Parts: sequence; structure tokens; C-alpha cells
Amino acid sequence: MAPPPRSQRITSRGNPRVAATARLRDRAARKERGLFLIDGLREVERALQSGIEPAELFVCDELVHTPEGRQVVARLRQTVAEVFDVSADVYGKIAFGQREDGVVLVARTPLRPLAELHLPPQPLVAVLEGLEKPGNIGAILRTADAAGVDAVVVADGRTDLFNPNAIRASLGTIFRPNVREATSAETIEWLRGLGIPLLAARPDATQLYTAVDLSRGAAFVLGSEAHGLSPAWNAAGITPIRLPMHGLADSLNVSTTAAVLFYEAVRQRARDRE
Amino acid sequence: MAPPPRSQRITSRGNPRVAATARLRDRAARKERGLFLIDGLREVERALQSGIEPAELFVCDELVHTPEGRQVVARLRQTVAEVFDVSADVYGKIAFGQREDGVVLVARTPLRPLAELHLPPQPLVAVLEGLEKPGNIGAILRTADAAGVDAVVVADGRTDLFNPNAIRASLGTIFRPNVREATSAETIEWLRGLGIPLLAARPDATQLYTAVDLSRGAAFVLGSEAHGLSPAWNAAGITPIRLPMHGLADSLNVSTTAAVLFYEAVRQRARDRE
Repeated sequence: MAPPPRSQRITSRGNPRVAATARLRDRAARKERGLFLIDGLREVERALQSGIEPAELFVCDELVHTPEGRQVVARLRQTVAEVFDVSADVYGKIAFGQREDGVVLVARTPLRPLAELHLPPQPLVAVLEGLEKPGNIGAILRTADAAGVDAVVVADGRTDLFNPNAIRASLGTIFRPNVREATSAETIEWLRGLGIPLLAARPDATQLYTAVDLSRGAAFVLGSEAHGLSPAWNAAGITPIRLPMHGLADSLNVSTTAAVLFYEAVRQRARDRE
Repeated sequence: MAPPPRSQRITSRGNPRVAATARLRDRAARKERGLFLIDGLREVERALQSGIEPAELFVCDELVHTPEGRQVVARLRQTVAEVFDVSADVYGKIAFGQREDGVVLVARTPLRPLAELHLPPQPLVAVLEGLEKPGNIGAILRTADAAGVDAVVVADGRTDLFNPNAIRASLGTIFRPNVREATSAETIEWLRGLGIPLLAARPDATQLYTAVDLSRGAAFVLGSEAHGLSPAWNAAGITPIRLPMHGLADSLNVSTTAAVLFYEAVRQRARDRE
């Protein structure tokens, strides 16, 4: 059998493969096919660096404007088995980002069980339970990456992890292998094995986050602004903590809370190493 | 002369007052008329509590669903001189929020010079220079309010302060009288009179934010992610500081940086009072 051509050209928006790819913006289609979309050069590069497996690449050469972009595309053409060159019109149907980088990758949803996650001793862990807004999940992953958080578990997500808005807000940090999905029950069991303080952020907690020793690892558990954490997190051995609030508004955005907690842990751990 | 009726009814989307109000979504119209829009019950209440002067109120009674909402509307009808009862169709033309509270207020843009801002001794101040995204400005104002920051100056804004997206993201904290607009030159001159450390957040700074004494007040200066701070902030007496970065992504969102800085100051100041 002759090898398939390295690239095929698609110019019709009605092409069935284009239609199937565009449907991957919907959670149901992503789940059914075990595939998701990555839009943008930086995001595609970070996905491949993080071990995400590519399935199909769509390139619109006329939108790849920079020399760096053309280099990346040339590398991708060598890496991805199925490459489709598409017109700007077809690209517009499958792209979803605000930037127009000319590249959309269809990738295989990784299966990464929580139990197979290996952590350093005294790790820093974050659990995000039931967050509604993919943009918040992405923003927290970006901050977790910058702060050097060792693992982030998205527990009982109200959205799937690889929602396009989560990918975009994460700047591609969502692909890192230390980002996992699990149920809250699995997550609690797993956390109990780590031997680190389990700290649930709650507006009604009495203990301030700054009063806790974070220097020998910690797991921060954050829930949605609308619904808070589920009752599972009321269990023994989980300490509620809060940030001080001084103002008119009686709450912080969950990604703001996460950033303050992560960087307090970074501060305490750096001090500890001095 | 007879007093004007307390309320007029508008049912046509083509009504000139409705058209003029809808145009207040654009910066040029806001600037020309010295007016801006506030959408939502909570936001309208916070604006009036903060001394914002109302001009015209638009109410769509059929969208005011809760008893609390009806109480607020009844109070507003007593407070605002010009009240217009509008159909859901007309309301849809002037509202811009995602929630549909049935209330849009046209308010007068306050004139609040920086020089007339009175601060406590050793204040905590934030300066946001040239931020592009109104949502980031609003998010930072929400966090500043929660952290008890004494004043926020929006300097050389690439958007006007009362952009609808900034109002929404701020949860109404944008109306507080300690939020001001100024040029960067005015802001620097004003800051120099405060006698507090001036700290410019820059990714290439050598000093970590945790190495600075924030216990006796500080001014944090934050620029846009895309453009950084203008050269004015390279002046003598302004110390560059940075957050540690560990990850793939080489930057933090500006509202994340702001949150970490504000809460480090809160932590140091609380410790100081122990």
C-alpha cells in the first residue's frame, strides 16, 4: 500500500472532516471522540512538549506571518501524521482563538490517572472542585505553573479540562502532565496518602492562611464562588482557611484566592531554604 | 411650572433617549456627555453608596424578580430625578450585563482630582498604568477593595475608568471614592509626597517583593502585560520588584500579580500590629 500523502488540501467549509473538527468545540463531541482542539502556535508547541499526542493538524499558511511561526509549522508537518492545508475561510470555521495563528491541532485526550502521578517529597498541591468557568481554571493553572505548584487536580469539574477557554486562559500550561482530572472522592483518598496539611479555602473559616505552616508541603482546596466546596471537604483532617477581607465586596475571585495562597506557600518555602 | 411626572414610559427602541443611552457604551459618547452606564442592582446600589451622582434611571419592572430587587427599585425611584419605565425590548437595547436585573442607571462621571484624595498615614496604594483590558482593571479593583488598599490610581488608561466591563468585573468597587484617574506624571509627583516606598512590578527586577518592608505603607505600580511600564517609572527612588517564576509560562496575569502584592502587604502589616 502506498503511504498516504503528507498533506491534503481542504477549501470547502462543508467538508465532513472540517465539520467534525468544528464540533469538537462542544464537550459532548470531545468526550465521544476522545479528542480536543488546540488553537495557536504557542499552545500547540506547549502541548507537544508536554507529551500530548497529536491526531490531525490544520494549517492555513497565509495566516502564518512570522519566521518563528513558519519554523514551528515546518516542525509540526514532520511530527503530525495527518496534515490538512486549509483556506482562510475553512480555518475560520475551526479556529476559536482571538489570535489568528493559522494553526489548529486536533489532539488525543490524555488518560492520566491520579494514582500514577509522582510527586516530590513535601509537595505543593492544588485541588479545584466544581469550578464553572473554564477561564478561571485556565487562569489558576497559569498561576500554579508560575508558582511551581507540583500538581493540580481538577475534581468533579463542571466543565471538561480541555475546554477551549481553559486552554486559552492557561497559556498552554494546562497540558503539563502534573494537571489531572479526578472525582472528589478519589482526590481526597489520594491526598490522605501524601502526608501534607489539607487546607480548604472557605470564606467562613476562622484560621487565616498566613497562620498555617506551609513550609513542608500543603494541598489547597478551592471551590466555586457560587457553590463553595461540596460536603466531602468537611471531613476530619481538612483545615478550613480564609483570606482577610476588608472591603465592600465580600468575596474574591477564585483565581485571586488561588494566587495569594500559592505565593504564600512559595514565600514560606523559600524562607525555609535560606 | 408644574413638576415633571415622576416616571415616563418608553416602549419604542427608536426613542431618541434610548438611542442616546445605548451610545454610552462607547467611550467617545461617555467622554462627550460626561455620563456613563451602570447595569445591575448591586452595582447601582454601590455606586450611590459611593457618592456617584445619578442622572437617569431606566427600569423594566417585569425583570425585577426578587423582593429585595423591588425594594431597591422603590428606593431608586425616590432618589433619581428622571425615571423611565421601559419594556423588556427597550431594556435589552440599553442593558449590557449578563445578568438581567431590570435596572440601568445613567450616572455623572465624577470629577475626583488626585490632589484631593486624603489618605491615612503609611497608606497602601496601587497604580495601574496603561492597562488595556477593562476586565483586568475591574478585577484588580475588586481585589484592592478586599485587601483594604487605601487608594488605586488608574494612570494613563488605555480605556476610560467607567468602561462597562471594568464596572462589571469590579462588582461595583470601582465607584469607591478612593479610585482615581490621573496622568502618570501627576501620579509620580503625588506619590513622591506620600513618603512611602515606590515599588514598580517588573519581570526583570532583581529584588523579590518579599524582600521589601511593606509594613509602613507602599505604592505598587503595575503596567500592562503587553507593554510594561512607561519610562517615567525608571526614575530614581522607584524600586523594581518581581515575583518568583518557576514554570513554562514566563508571566503572570497583571491582576494575579496585583493580588499577590496586595496580600503580602496585608500580611506584613498585620504581623506588624501583633
